[in-house]
Amino acid sequence: MKRCVITISRQCGSGGHTIGKTVAEHLGIPFYDKKLVQIVAERSGLSPETVEKQGEYHTPSLLYNIATGGYSAYASHQYSAENRQAMRLPDQINAYQTELIKELAEKGSCVIVGRCADSVLRDREDCFHVFIFGALQDRAERVVAEHGIDAKAAEGHVRERDKKRAAYYKHITDKVWGMSSNYDLCLNSSRLGIDRCVELILATAGAGTGS
Amino acid sequence: MKRCVITISRQCGSGGHTIGKTVAEHLGIPFYDKKLVQIVAERSGLSPETVEKQGEYHTPSLLYNIATGGYSAYASHQYSAENRQAMRLPDQINAYQTELIKELAEKGSCVIVGRCADSVLRDREDCFHVFIFGALQDRAERVVAEHGIDAKAAEGHVRERDKKRAAYYKHITDKVWGMSSNYDLCLNSSRLGIDRCVELILATAGAGTGS
Repeated sequence: MKRCVITISRQCGSGGHTIGKTVAEHLGIPFYDKKLVQIVAERSGLSPETVEKQGEYHTPSLLYNIATGGYSAYASHQYSAENRQAMRLPDQINAYQTELIKELAEKGSCVIVGRCADSVLRDREDCFHVFIFGALQDRAERVVAEHGIDAKAAEGHVRERDKKRAAYYKHITDKVWGMSSNYDLCLNSSRLGIDRCVELILATAGAGTGS
Repeated sequence: MKRCVITISRQCGSGGHTIGKTVAEHLGIPFYDKKLVQIVAERSGLSPETVEKQGEYHTPSLLYNIATGGYSAYASHQYSAENRQAMRLPDQINAYQTELIKELAEKGSCVIVGRCADSVLRDREDCFHVFIFGALQDRAERVVAEHGIDAKAAEGHVRERDKKRAAYYKHITDKVWGMSSNYDLCLNSSRLGIDRCVELILATAGAGTGS
């Protein structure tokens, strides 16, 4: 495969983490999900828990959006050190994440999960953007099996996390999370299965264009 | 391939028609795009031009939506002969289209382009739903090359048709056109190329599920 940064955006419980990890293993390239959180935590001095919670799931209030002029200050993914001081925590974390994602893409091929990486790297031609989604019931079953979430609460948990990811994505990018045109390839993991999703990404990412 | 009805939804100029036609040829199964329009025209007594224009691009007015209770009367895709008489032309055409799409899916494997077929056939497990999209510039170039649209007007033409398709889809299904979770596979034809889109559909549709 030629040099390629693969971003994986994913509905909660869709298997996107596993798919991204397996793709990275097949290609022998770095995989950034929790590792990205750890690096941001080290650089910012915040705890990994805070970075994880506020860096992808924070839902900005309407009042906050009005006061700051909404997404527009952040949509360009350009931040100065001075600006960062004046930001609220979720936007500070996003600034660190954005900076790191750009650095990682500059370094070489890798797989990056979540954190609006598709939008941060929108203008790079050596990136390939994937969205993984699936049926609500399957996703609920997966979070029960993999994360020990209570079965009765699982559907609610999945919906709530997706709602927050969508709100965060909207805040940062002013785009609709999960809208196919934001990505290069969108896969229904309930229909296709995890293994086939991996195969499809391996068959397409970095394979070049042409019609 | 086991029995499978493939629906292709597509942004204007994305090559979705060509992709669907090529997939159908490879599989030796019927292809419905203009043919669907012709059958609806024959059954309804309307001209093919009217069926095409009002059956996918009609944008219902806000007043009309309020007066009829919006999409809700049509979202179930259930129409009686009496109801149909009372409908406005675009909804009458949609009723004929819906009926025909269900008949075609019942008959056997085929490829159906557009006309909210993904939503009409949502509950059938033997259907596979694809969305094809691409970069605006590529799509504009394709409509210039394939349909002789004036180059200066091409981007506006493409945007306008997509806007109308999205509005029609919203009216009929109450869902967002192009939202990845409506489909099983979404492909960026600008990035992947027409040939690879065909290959990916052939490799996935009807291939069964499993993870």
